[in-house]
Amino acid sequence: LIEKQKDVSKPWGGRFAAATDAEVERFTASEHFDRRLARFDIQGSIAHARMLATVGVLSEGERDAIVEGLRAIAAEIEAGEFPWSPALEDVHMNIERRLTERIGEPGKKLHTARSRNDQVATDMRLFLRDAIDAARAGVAALESALVEVAEREADTVMPGFTHLQTAQPVTFGHHVLAWVEMLERDRDRLADCRRRTDVMPLGSAALAGTSFAIDREHTREALGFPALSRNSLDAVSDRDFAIEFCAAASILMVHLSRMCEELILWMSERFRFIDIDDAFCTGSSIMPQKKNPDVAELVRGKSARVIGHLTAMLVLMKGQPLAYNRDNQEDKEPLFDTVDTVLDSLRVLTAMWPGVRVNRKVLREAARGGFATATDLAEYLVRRGVPFRDAHEAVGRAVALAQERGVDLADLPLEDLRAFCSLIEPGVYEVLTLEGSLAARDHVGGTAPTRVRAEVSRMRALLEREAQG
Amino acid sequence: LIEKQKDVSKPWGGRFAAATDAEVERFTASEHFDRRLARFDIQGSIAHARMLATVGVLSEGERDAIVEGLRAIAAEIEAGEFPWSPALEDVHMNIERRLTERIGEPGKKLHTARSRNDQVATDMRLFLRDAIDAARAGVAALESALVEVAEREADTVMPGFTHLQTAQPVTFGHHVLAWVEMLERDRDRLADCRRRTDVMPLGSAALAGTSFAIDREHTREALGFPALSRNSLDAVSDRDFAIEFCAAASILMVHLSRMCEELILWMSERFRFIDIDDAFCTGSSIMPQKKNPDVAELVRGKSARVIGHLTAMLVLMKGQPLAYNRDNQEDKEPLFDTVDTVLDSLRVLTAMWPGVRVNRKVLREAARGGFATATDLAEYLVRRGVPFRDAHEAVGRAVALAQERGVDLADLPLEDLRAFCSLIEPGVYEVLTLEGSLAARDHVGGTAPTRVRAEVSRMRALLEREAQG
Amino acid sequence: LIEKQKDVSKPWGGRFAAATDAEVERFTASEHFDRRLARFDIQGSIAHARMLATVGVLSEGERDAIVEGLRAIAAEIEAGEFPWSPALEDVHMNIERRLTERIGEPGKKLHTARSRNDQVATDMRLFLRDAIDAARAGVAALESALVEVAEREADTVMPGFTHLQTAQPVTFGHHVLAWVEMLERDRDRLADCRRRTDVMPLGSAALAGTSFAIDREHTREALGFPALSRNSLDAVSDRDFAIEFCAAASILMVHLSRMCEELILWMSERFRFIDIDDAFCTGSSIMPQKKNPDVAELVRGKSARVIGHLTAMLVLMKGQPLAYNRDNQEDKEPLFDTVDTVLDSLRVLTAMWPGVRVNRKVLREAARGGFATATDLAEYLVRRGVPFRDAHEAVGRAVALAQERGVDLADLPLEDLRAFCSLIEPGVYEVLTLEGSLAARDHVGGTAPTRVRAEVSRMRALLEREAQG
Amino acid sequence: LIEKQKDVSKPWGGRFAAATDAEVERFTASEHFDRRLARFDIQGSIAHARMLATVGVLSEGERDAIVEGLRAIAAEIEAGEFPWSPALEDVHMNIERRLTERIGEPGKKLHTARSRNDQVATDMRLFLRDAIDAARAGVAALESALVEVAEREADTVMPGFTHLQTAQPVTFGHHVLAWVEMLERDRDRLADCRRRTDVMPLGSAALAGTSFAIDREHTREALGFPALSRNSLDAVSDRDFAIEFCAAASILMVHLSRMCEELILWMSERFRFIDIDDAFCTGSSIMPQKKNPDVAELVRGKSARVIGHLTAMLVLMKGQPLAYNRDNQEDKEPLFDTVDTVLDSLRVLTAMWPGVRVNRKVLREAARGGFATATDLAEYLVRRGVPFRDAHEAVGRAVALAQERGVDLADLPLEDLRAFCSLIEPGVYEVLTLEGSLAARDHVGGTAPTRVRAEVSRMRALLEREAQG
Repeated sequence: LIEKQKDVSKPWGGRFAAATDAEVERFTASEHFDRRLARFDIQGSIAHARMLATVGVLSEGERDAIVEGLRAIAAEIEAGEFPWSPALEDVHMNIERRLTERIGEPGKKLHTARSRNDQVATDMRLFLRDAIDAARAGVAALESALVEVAEREADTVMPGFTHLQTAQPVTFGHHVLAWVEMLERDRDRLADCRRRTDVMPLGSAALAGTSFAIDREHTREALGFPALSRNSLDAVSDRDFAIEFCAAASILMVHLSRMCEELILWMSERFRFIDIDDAFCTGSSIMPQKKNPDVAELVRGKSARVIGHLTAMLVLMKGQPLAYNRDNQEDKEPLFDTVDTVLDSLRVLTAMWPGVRVNRKVLREAARGGFATATDLAEYLVRRGVPFRDAHEAVGRAVALAQERGVDLADLPLEDLRAFCSLIEPGVYEVLTLEGSLAARDHVGGTAPTRVRAEVSRMRALLEREAQG
Repeated sequence: LIEKQKDVSKPWGGRFAAATDAEVERFTASEHFDRRLARFDIQGSIAHARMLATVGVLSEGERDAIVEGLRAIAAEIEAGEFPWSPALEDVHMNIERRLTERIGEPGKKLHTARSRNDQVATDMRLFLRDAIDAARAGVAALESALVEVAEREADTVMPGFTHLQTAQPVTFGHHVLAWVEMLERDRDRLADCRRRTDVMPLGSAALAGTSFAIDREHTREALGFPALSRNSLDAVSDRDFAIEFCAAASILMVHLSRMCEELILWMSERFRFIDIDDAFCTGSSIMPQKKNPDVAELVRGKSARVIGHLTAMLVLMKGQPLAYNRDNQEDKEPLFDTVDTVLDSLRVLTAMWPGVRVNRKVLREAARGGFATATDLAEYLVRRGVPFRDAHEAVGRAVALAQERGVDLADLPLEDLRAFCSLIEPGVYEVLTLEGSLAARDHVGGTAPTRVRAEVSRMRALLEREAQG
Repeated sequence: LIEKQKDVSKPWGGRFAAATDAEVERFTASEHFDRRLARFDIQGSIAHARMLATVGVLSEGERDAIVEGLRAIAAEIEAGEFPWSPALEDVHMNIERRLTERIGEPGKKLHTARSRNDQVATDMRLFLRDAIDAARAGVAALESALVEVAEREADTVMPGFTHLQTAQPVTFGHHVLAWVEMLERDRDRLADCRRRTDVMPLGSAALAGTSFAIDREHTREALGFPALSRNSLDAVSDRDFAIEFCAAASILMVHLSRMCEELILWMSERFRFIDIDDAFCTGSSIMPQKKNPDVAELVRGKSARVIGHLTAMLVLMKGQPLAYNRDNQEDKEPLFDTVDTVLDSLRVLTAMWPGVRVNRKVLREAARGGFATATDLAEYLVRRGVPFRDAHEAVGRAVALAQERGVDLADLPLEDLRAFCSLIEPGVYEVLTLEGSLAARDHVGGTAPTRVRAEVSRMRALLEREAQG
Repeated sequence: LIEKQKDVSKPWGGRFAAATDAEVERFTASEHFDRRLARFDIQGSIAHARMLATVGVLSEGERDAIVEGLRAIAAEIEAGEFPWSPALEDVHMNIERRLTERIGEPGKKLHTARSRNDQVATDMRLFLRDAIDAARAGVAALESALVEVAEREADTVMPGFTHLQTAQPVTFGHHVLAWVEMLERDRDRLADCRRRTDVMPLGSAALAGTSFAIDREHTREALGFPALSRNSLDAVSDRDFAIEFCAAASILMVHLSRMCEELILWMSERFRFIDIDDAFCTGSSIMPQKKNPDVAELVRGKSARVIGHLTAMLVLMKGQPLAYNRDNQEDKEPLFDTVDTVLDSLRVLTAMWPGVRVNRKVLREAARGGFATATDLAEYLVRRGVPFRDAHEAVGRAVALAQERGVDLADLPLEDLRAFCSLIEPGVYEVLTLEGSLAARDHVGGTAPTRVRAEVSRMRALLEREAQG
């Protein structure tokens, strides 16, 4: 059926009678995306070569030729001069073949006591370790930007919403710190994921380990991994670290999407709570007046692709028998795109926040509507001895009356208020003020300006401490 | 905060006081992926320009300049000489700006009575219409390849499995036709999706339609759309067609993943039901003897990314208010990748099937184990008047005995069989043969070779009919 | 290891030496959810028994006993008096065992020439066929409710949004009809799904068909299926119809979530575009003034579970070899819950719409802000010969000036407007009115009140026609 | 429109003019599933009441009445005698209303200084904390069962697979320990999730905290939470802990699905690597000989529902503005079902493993095929100075020859082997033995029996240590 010349270009061609079909070559090649791992692949190969020399599998001369050759290749790649070839399938074979081109015989010895299976697992972990560090730094940077805003707006009153209905007055700073809390959890989750990523699979070879007397501790230390994988079958097939990262990234992106939803709402004509600097908005090709919060919309939208990638990773691994299967090649593109999306989204939001202007006047006006202090009135009654459930009902009726008259609670005359509960006294109007309501919520987690400032200090100290060490 | 020069490069810059932040420009640009729509964008613009001339918004001279200019741009793009610029955001603005560079004034008139919102929706539908046609043709090609195999192996007996346990003998041709049935449903679903894709949104402008007296029928006919969108708000925000395509593609990829799961099983050392030509397998970097069914594994794995894209599309649209939001820009990459993955997977499997060798001897041997004809024995008893439930139990006991002795049902002496049911007579051994079992299942949907041949004829006629018309 | 009494209660116990582990029995049982299929299971069994009598496998007396017995069981189930037992695994075995208890010997003959594999596939299709009809009727009912609103609010002006920024004036009726368009596509998709669901798998038996000379056409006609499945292996393992339904339901729920997002926005204090009747809102346990749009929030939230079910269905089938595997039992709960969620959500929204009050005054006021008619001004300039791109820029500058002054475009004196373009004449103020803007968009798909009324008539006729036939 | 009697039954009815629509009541009620939280709800309420007494909001008498009343209600619920009512919406209001029925006035005071928003967040965290402990114990139990098997089968040779093709010999114990490694990571992830779950939101009230001088430390200590939430807006809207649990559960279920895939393969007629006790298998309604690995299939299938639930949770939260929205009610059913699925799956697999018989003879026979020691031959050549890449190619050619002749590598005469590489000597046949191959892989992570035993000891010690403390 297929009459081709014997394929001598493949490093595994010995046992094959026919060349790889061209369509198959294209379909199975991964070098166009896994070349991104080149830096880590070379780092791993250098460590591997040095270890092989230590245990006597390579001579010192061979080792030096390999190390030097790999460094030259790294330079070629960085300079964009490396001759990538899809026929050589992946980043590993491209580099190995090039090494042999450059240094001859010793290049053919590099793959002793390892397989692409443990090699790519090592590359991925080295890559992700760095990416997690970058993501954690990116989260911290956004947190810092938010903490600035929180401090500046610690006293700014705004309507807090539940069900998007006016609920109670809160401070803008408190609202902003809610996002900081979410982001802190994200940083924490990423740190846990990093710990589980930071395990070295190298030495597992194809699936069973190797018959050479390798020294895995040597390689581990060279690559800065705190731990060794304990089972070769697991080590070459495990992609938990990548899935866990996508899960942590999905939650992070959901947080960002929630923040962006509010930025979009707040910048709408109906809210006008904030304005975003022109430099962070774009216009319309047809409507000359438009100024759109595109950045926020795109970040909200990009949460979708990350959730999609998480789904893909789980579907990918579901039901796979041990050990390595080629399906796993499909882990890279979603992981890479997740990393890029997270880092880009964090960066652009961090840059945008200083360009967000807070319309304090509008916020205050908004907070005055919607009977935001009705709960304060109920709590006032409780302090006068009314059971909460009865107080709630009485205030509910007062609200109904105020709404009927089209006025606020504070606009109802005392006698009308007293009709709902005779315990109400002239001092009641003080609890109905926005400042009174805010100041009263002065406990851990509460919205009082003093609490906001305390949290700002705490977070700033925490972020600085981490940045230093 | 941000002090930049006024941005004159943006087509919507009039109302803006500050230039777009560079990070934002990079973050929001889509030209690096939506340039793929260029061909359709130009097709739509030519139809639009012609319509504008018909209703008097453009002069004939302006129209001709535009059409000629766009054609020149199409040639530039095809030749890889077009000066793409991310600062111009997307494919639409890149082309419009280039048009004005080339033809001056008339280029600035092209965007009359339209917006990027209806423009991109039109481009996407033109693109997807073609992609669906290609996908349907790809499915048909794979079906044809399978129909060939089914005919060739219409008599080949193999063990049919449920729960991956030997169940009953089936013909290999029947098994292959099961996949053809799945693929036929995929083609059908794609046709339905195409019908809903084939609706023209152009004329909806930004969201409300336009105040120019446009002739949407004119454009519709020029672009070959059978129908017009009926509501401008819906038309610019609707991405149902893309989601529906991803859903149909997901089901298709699940079918392919199921086929590939079996190819992988069948080519394993334990099954040896088939062998796949060397040209469609690859080897190992460490294990010299390996020949792996990589194509099948990759297709199985690629089902994951398509399911991930479907998830992403649904998440993207969930909860979006009308009309267009920038989130929607995120629809393109998953859609494009879904199209590519589907087409590639179909193509490579279609190419591979002629290289699949069926090991008839192994299949027959396998069908003889596992008591595959136990059901035939039960049915034999039913024909002798035993209620099915009792027959089932009696045969179950006979199986237990045979298993204990390590023999097949057909190897049990008549007296032993009669111990379970005295109605058994010497002729029983005929129903226990594989051929007897197969031939007996001769009804619509049954596995008998005659039925397989009938279905092969039916499918071949159907596929030929469609290919012609 | 496990020393138990032989299990005689299982219909497949003949070949087994040990009783089923109690934990396994609980883990594998499905009768607590698949009993929902009982009605369809009995319907299918009656048709099967009648067919068996026709082809001579059952006597007429046996057939009558079975049919009568099954009817009695149906009555028992409806009366809540059926003795369901998890030890009998599923709905099928519960009913068969009960039948034999009631009518003896003939009950043991019912399962001749079929398997639970084709039986459950038939039950599922009968169930889903009904469910799709209910869903289509539910969608039509919601459409009808919306068409009423669209007619009533055909002239009501409101700000149309893109990016949630004021874009152009639209009519409320036009906005409501955008949802109707979405829902029409949903109905269409459901109809296509129904067509593919409406295929009879009965007769496929376990996986290979049966050796009895069954008459599948007889059963098909009795059960009202227009078509027969053509391949027994496919027929027992195919769950495409269920996945496709979940996909169609996901898109539908995304549409509902989008509608609900807007209802929630519109009912917020900041928008006040609508008010929802108290009967469709709920309150807060702590804040006495709260009135929350819970129904809309829950529907928006419920889109998540349906998308989750779709994901689950695809994951379930991915990579399964032919034919039936027990994994498939997991198809029922997500499908049932999807059906319930869709029907409930449609019903409650349909009931709610008449209780939605539209605040026309607020809407008009809102439409006057945000420079909603800037595009009309640009189009005015185009009609005076200015290329659109230049007109866009000039109006953009005019908007910047108006914004600086804190006034609307229509408030700028003529000389100021003319500073941007000398072609502007006194008549310009007419195109800046909301009514002028609306009326001008009078083409298919446009927002003009006349168009809204035309679409209302078209949709009403279409819905009535379908309701009748 | 809606003319109903004023609804006095709702605890928030004060401000409402119309009763809740019956359909809405049914649609929004959650008591039929959130009653599962009753135990935790009461636990939280008791702690809350005690705290209120400490800070003087309740008298000691009121506190005692409440605590006693709640305990009586807990007993009612446990006894199945509690009068649940959907009209009271949820578990919280059902219990509060019942409390007031039982103890009068003080019952109406319990809800002081809290909201259902912080209450349900607390309940969920108390519930999940317990569930995570149960899941971790369940994982440990399965690990222990596997460690037993690993020890027993430390010397059992089997073919290790990559791409489901025979790769290299491994020990059965090593393979089993690969799963233990996966499960250890699951336990670790669950522990991290528990840490983030174990934070008390109570005191956040609706969204802003409360004006009462509450003592959150008092409640925290009573409920055994190590930490307090730091931001009230975040605390009532945060569902990260539930999403993270679903993510950890999804990875765990993917691990179980992978194990089950292999159990299913291994029990197939083609593999016969294992046999599963009758008590853990079920049969067929039609095929008397069938014995199906249903438990493994169902667990594999159930991975789908958990992944679906994770997707649902992420979709649910995506784009939600702060603070609490009713959408969040949809978090419970997927979380509960995830917990149940994980616990059930772990339990049934743990019970099943002792009933898995390993067919050592079949495994050894299988390991002898497929040229499993080809890599050992290549490594032999390397030790004789051949560069690995050349050794790989030479052995590849030897395999091709052996395959052509239909023999194993060890069956090729020395001269034939030497034709590929003259460095081969008679001793080569020793490295081609299975035992030689296994024993040689004696490094951390390798498959050598000694390593398996070392890992068994390590894991056993680790599990025992944890079980004790």
